[in-house]
Amino acid sequence: MPRETLVDSRQEILRTAARLFQQRGYDATSMNDVAAALKLSKGGLYHHFQSKDEILFEIMNHAMDLTQERVLSPVRSISDPEERLRALIRRHIEVILSPRDREITVMLHENHPLPPALRKRINTRKKDYVHFVENLIVDVQRARHTKGSVSPRAAAFALLGMINWIYQWYKPEGNLQANNLVPQFTEMVFGGILA
Amino acid sequence: MPRETLVDSRQEILRTAARLFQQRGYDATSMNDVAAALKLSKGGLYHHFQSKDEILFEIMNHAMDLTQERVLSPVRSISDPEERLRALIRRHIEVILSPRDREITVMLHENHPLPPALRKRINTRKKDYVHFVENLIVDVQRARHTKGSVSPRAAAFALLGMINWIYQWYKPEGNLQANNLVPQFTEMVFGGILA
Repeated sequence: MPRETLVDSRQEILRTAARLFQQRGYDATSMNDVAAALKLSKGGLYHHFQSKDEILFEIMNHAMDLTQERVLSPVRSISDPEERLRALIRRHIEVILSPRDREITVMLHENHPLPPALRKRINTRKKDYVHFVENLIVDVQRARHTKGSVSPRAAAFALLGMINWIYQWYKPEGNLQANNLVPQFTEMVFGGILA
Repeated sequence: MPRETLVDSRQEILRTAARLFQQRGYDATSMNDVAAALKLSKGGLYHHFQSKDEILFEIMNHAMDLTQERVLSPVRSISDPEERLRALIRRHIEVILSPRDREITVMLHENHPLPPALRKRINTRKKDYVHFVENLIVDVQRARHTKGSVSPRAAAFALLGMINWIYQWYKPEGNLQANNLVPQFTEMVFGGILA
């Protein structure tokens, strides 16, 4: 099997499993259920993933990969701190709203039991992201010559809360979509950190 | 049994069940597990709650009761809109950080499968809270004679995201505690809605 197809089918498994986990609950979904939804034999599924824990871990890890590829990597090369922060807010919101990846990214923040070693690897990647945002806010406040009354750390958590919470209320048919949400949340963050 | 004791033991059941649901997962926790953790007979547990769905619903409903009692009710009587918003932010953060109730309030936002009729009752209460916050932001912007570039609805979701997200990163031994978090998040919100 060519590598491209292999990668695609792994991602397809993760997306389908993520959808089932959300609809039925993680524990109530068996490896058999995942295989059946994909029209795979149980052996075919185990060829890709050895356990449900591994699938859950890979869903979360893939969500962090998406954040790395679509937010962190493109943003790092922007030299102006304000532009870098604006791009991060826009790109992070776009990842959250992506219909193709929403099933995956939602799983990142649900409180599912994962073996401690795997849980730690995800948490380390999450912490790295928090630190990146925190340092970026330091740079923006410095460039504007304002210390601000809000610490970069509290502001980073506020920003991540605003954006990661979107999945709790977002409706594809609602009035708030990327085109008006991005400028408003950007305004909220800049108003907050430069106040 | 006097009514006080009855109420207390119901809340005790809800707190214990909420803790088990988070540690082991909702589906992996049986009514037997809940009864055992409480040193109750299965019959004793069923005397209070007829099903695990009912327990999950009552956990979420109790979380909304706490929000009603400790945030909405005391805040409604404050006539000045800015003071009302400041009090809401402070009180909502205090509910989230309450060690006694954290197990309960966390459950409100986890994506657990609940029968549609029960899910709808919780969602209606959540929506009422969003509308209260939204209207409060309208009042603050009006009192300050600013329309602001952020709509009251987007700002309400941003505020709720910032605060409800706290449980994802909060550490009882960390530097960010209610005494410094409340003024910083208040500054973020006011900076954002008045920008």
